[in-house]
Amino acid sequence: MAKDKKLVEAITSMEEDFAQWYTDVVKKAELIDYSSVRGCMILRPNGYAIWENIQKELDRRFKETGVENVYMPMFIPESLLQKEKDHVEGFAPEVAWVTHGGLEPLQERLCVRPTSETLFCDLYSNIVQSYRDLPKLYNQWCSVVRWEKTTRPFLRSMEFLWQEGHTVHATADEAEERTIQMLNVYADFCEQVLAIPMIKGRKTDKEKFAGAHSTYTIEALMHDGKALQSGTSHNFGDGFAQAFGIQYTDKENKLQYAHQTSWGMSTRIIGAVIMVHGDDSGLVLPPRIAPTQVMIIPIAQHKEGVLEKAAELSSKLGAYRVKVDDSDKSPGWKFSEQEMRGIPLRIEIGPKDIEANQAVIVRRDTREKIIVSLDEIQVRVGEILETMQLEMLERARKHRDEHTSAATNFTAFADKITSEPGFVKAMWCGDRACEDEIKEKTGATSRCMPFEQEHIADTCVCCGKPAKSMVYWGKAY
Amino acid sequence: MAKDKKLVEAITSMEEDFAQWYTDVVKKAELIDYSSVRGCMILRPNGYAIWENIQKELDRRFKETGVENVYMPMFIPESLLQKEKDHVEGFAPEVAWVTHGGLEPLQERLCVRPTSETLFCDLYSNIVQSYRDLPKLYNQWCSVVRWEKTTRPFLRSMEFLWQEGHTVHATADEAEERTIQMLNVYADFCEQVLAIPMIKGRKTDKEKFAGAHSTYTIEALMHDGKALQSGTSHNFGDGFAQAFGIQYTDKENKLQYAHQTSWGMSTRIIGAVIMVHGDDSGLVLPPRIAPTQVMIIPIAQHKEGVLEKAAELSSKLGAYRVKVDDSDKSPGWKFSEQEMRGIPLRIEIGPKDIEANQAVIVRRDTREKIIVSLDEIQVRVGEILETMQLEMLERARKHRDEHTSAATNFTAFADKITSEPGFVKAMWCGDRACEDEIKEKTGATSRCMPFEQEHIADTCVCCGKPAKSMVYWGKAY
Repeated sequence: MAKDKKLVEAITSMEEDFAQWYTDVVKKAELIDYSSVRGCMILRPNGYAIWENIQKELDRRFKETGVENVYMPMFIPESLLQKEKDHVEGFAPEVAWVTHGGLEPLQERLCVRPTSETLFCDLYSNIVQSYRDLPKLYNQWCSVVRWEKTTRPFLRSMEFLWQEGHTVHATADEAEERTIQMLNVYADFCEQVLAIPMIKGRKTDKEKFAGAHSTYTIEALMHDGKALQSGTSHNFGDGFAQAFGIQYTDKENKLQYAHQTSWGMSTRIIGAVIMVHGDDSGLVLPPRIAPTQVMIIPIAQHKEGVLEKAAELSSKLGAYRVKVDDSDKSPGWKFSEQEMRGIPLRIEIGPKDIEANQAVIVRRDTREKIIVSLDEIQVRVGEILETMQLEMLERARKHRDEHTSAATNFTAFADKITSEPGFVKAMWCGDRACEDEIKEKTGATSRCMPFEQEHIADTCVCCGKPAKSMVYWGKAY
Repeated sequence: MAKDKKLVEAITSMEEDFAQWYTDVVKKAELIDYSSVRGCMILRPNGYAIWENIQKELDRRFKETGVENVYMPMFIPESLLQKEKDHVEGFAPEVAWVTHGGLEPLQERLCVRPTSETLFCDLYSNIVQSYRDLPKLYNQWCSVVRWEKTTRPFLRSMEFLWQEGHTVHATADEAEERTIQMLNVYADFCEQVLAIPMIKGRKTDKEKFAGAHSTYTIEALMHDGKALQSGTSHNFGDGFAQAFGIQYTDKENKLQYAHQTSWGMSTRIIGAVIMVHGDDSGLVLPPRIAPTQVMIIPIAQHKEGVLEKAAELSSKLGAYRVKVDDSDKSPGWKFSEQEMRGIPLRIEIGPKDIEANQAVIVRRDTREKIIVSLDEIQVRVGEILETMQLEMLERARKHRDEHTSAATNFTAFADKITSEPGFVKAMWCGDRACEDEIKEKTGATSRCMPFEQEHIADTCVCCGKPAKSMVYWGKAY
């Protein structure tokens, strides 16, 4: 049995070293592998299958709001990237440059897209002429590249997978409405499917997207008390339209600038799933996103009828994503693997169970063992998966709320940020100087100005001047 | 009514100029748009939706054979690309090179993947140790870049979307079996879903993939008599395994080299759909791949009850991919648009139809008008779509067979190739010199040595020496 424990022993405990625990889990659960390309990760089948489920769920939700998918080139000519001033300043220092095609140097170098606003604007300037052409609600699933100095699997890598939605509208109001609508799509998806509660709000000017009029964000709290920006939605106003000449004739035949939005969610969100739900045995996946929801593990599988019964049970549970582990490993080893991979339910079935017409269901999150009659197992599996999904969300919400506090003066604020990691709510005057000072002195950044504002105090937690809004602060990934 | 004809008049007829017809269709059906990046195309919603359906169908078929999806980095370090000699010689002249990351020059330049054999081999050399680890059946959906001098939408572009499967096996037999299995998956998909009949066979050494032991292909004939290589499946033997050190211990504890395959299909296949099925009114999409299968066009839609009835009909036909065109354009203009976009069925419904409890169904391919009772329309639409799908395949097969001939001597061969474009079947001695001579003198290339061999003559059509195999020859895209 010593061998059975190897897999679990291979990972560091969360309390001991959270960062090492994270790295161990992504590797041992076979979500990723490192590649020969510095800072680029390989998404292995266990990792990519989670992304496929995320894609499927999000894509359906996008399309329900009228979004259509397209595909844009992965290269952006330098001159095109430079058309919007703030945008190029934000991205040029971190792009990869293609300078040679085949054996020839290029006349103009091309960057590998870090994001595709400029390409979408270029397209829209060609295909939008009249108010009849609006809105255009386009999205693409692709990878983007940002030349990062330090990288971590899922959280920050040179190349990552994402979707980027880019819409163009007749009016400022429509653009604002779409920006908020997509933020809500993200937040609902994260809560309902990934079981991660989100704080919705607006970024300060310091933290907003390069070239945006306003950036909205959803922020989650990880197990270690650090925040993770999980999805963003930007309203560009008519700034890009002016830079790229996206104009349409309105119903009165007057030429108007269009208004635009963009919004994105990336494989980074898989990092959030790991860090919100995982434990010292590995990954814990919410049932709705788990590529395999149920792993059937036969006990004493060499005995007559056991494997047959396991296969029969598997086909009986065809409504769920179910697998049988009939490999020649020991049951204990199989349990470890199923736990490491975060498969929500394990069903153990052996000769004694078969005799009693039952099976043992074990929940990955609580380790609760539930003995279920084989006659009722179809219904019971569905119920247990559903309960687990809801309880995981509530557990995450409870953890977040317990690690959220409020501060009304700088001493209390700094103390909270450093002593007990989590969100700290505090008032802010609106000045960049205070944001900078808070970051410098405590390491915390403004996460967002939440839509649900609370009046905690009259004055800014940093400078003491009159406060303009309540901000969530935290140390962030 | 003059305005109604504008859309059709905007495209060149096939007979007049097939290449221009093709370019007109991809643009006017809004499948693609040109981008600011030379040689890279934009896939617009109409074009990308076809690719999404192709992905969905192929992905399901792959997974049924045990394939799992992964994602590999888009960059390949130059030293990794160089590990397999034939492979680097084949691809190095046509790759894009990244030389700078952010503001810094790179120590080693990276190419943007033209294909990912080297990355998969690098991964397999790390994760394959024992026979228990085999086979690995991985696939990825991504874009690749090849620095082409001349480009055409879908057929040849600098960046294109595809899937690339890469498998690793214990034995040569298993690798060969998988190579053929995936070729069959492609051929079945093309016939059943895209209504394009395929010739299956092996490529000559001249035409095989850089680094492959053998390459298998499916070849289709376009409306203009030119051939299109539509999908390929490669058996690498243990060549890459030796270059990358992919070894495993077998059951007898002996170290063995693994055997590998790769196989790919790209957005190029959309070019085949256009050029096999299209006509002078635009695109004709096979029902099983069409993003919209039925377009309902209300007649005299300002009259009471017409739009309501169209909407009612649309929800009644919910089992199909159906849309209502209730825009303020004229019916004639809507007909042109539906035809240009290749939507398989149009349903016309106006006040007189409603009174008679009927609608008029018009098939896109034959233009046949079928009057159908509204009580039976659900069943009839299904039947007509199915008939259309099968007849499109048969029509394409008939066209191909009528444009396939055989030649037993060089004069007849050259005459056939130049006078009447199509496939020419002819015997070949197996020497590269004859292939080169045929290409030089006639412009035809060997498309494949078909699995279904015929004995047309005893001697090579070029040199007159004893023949080794029958080859399909043709001018190709």
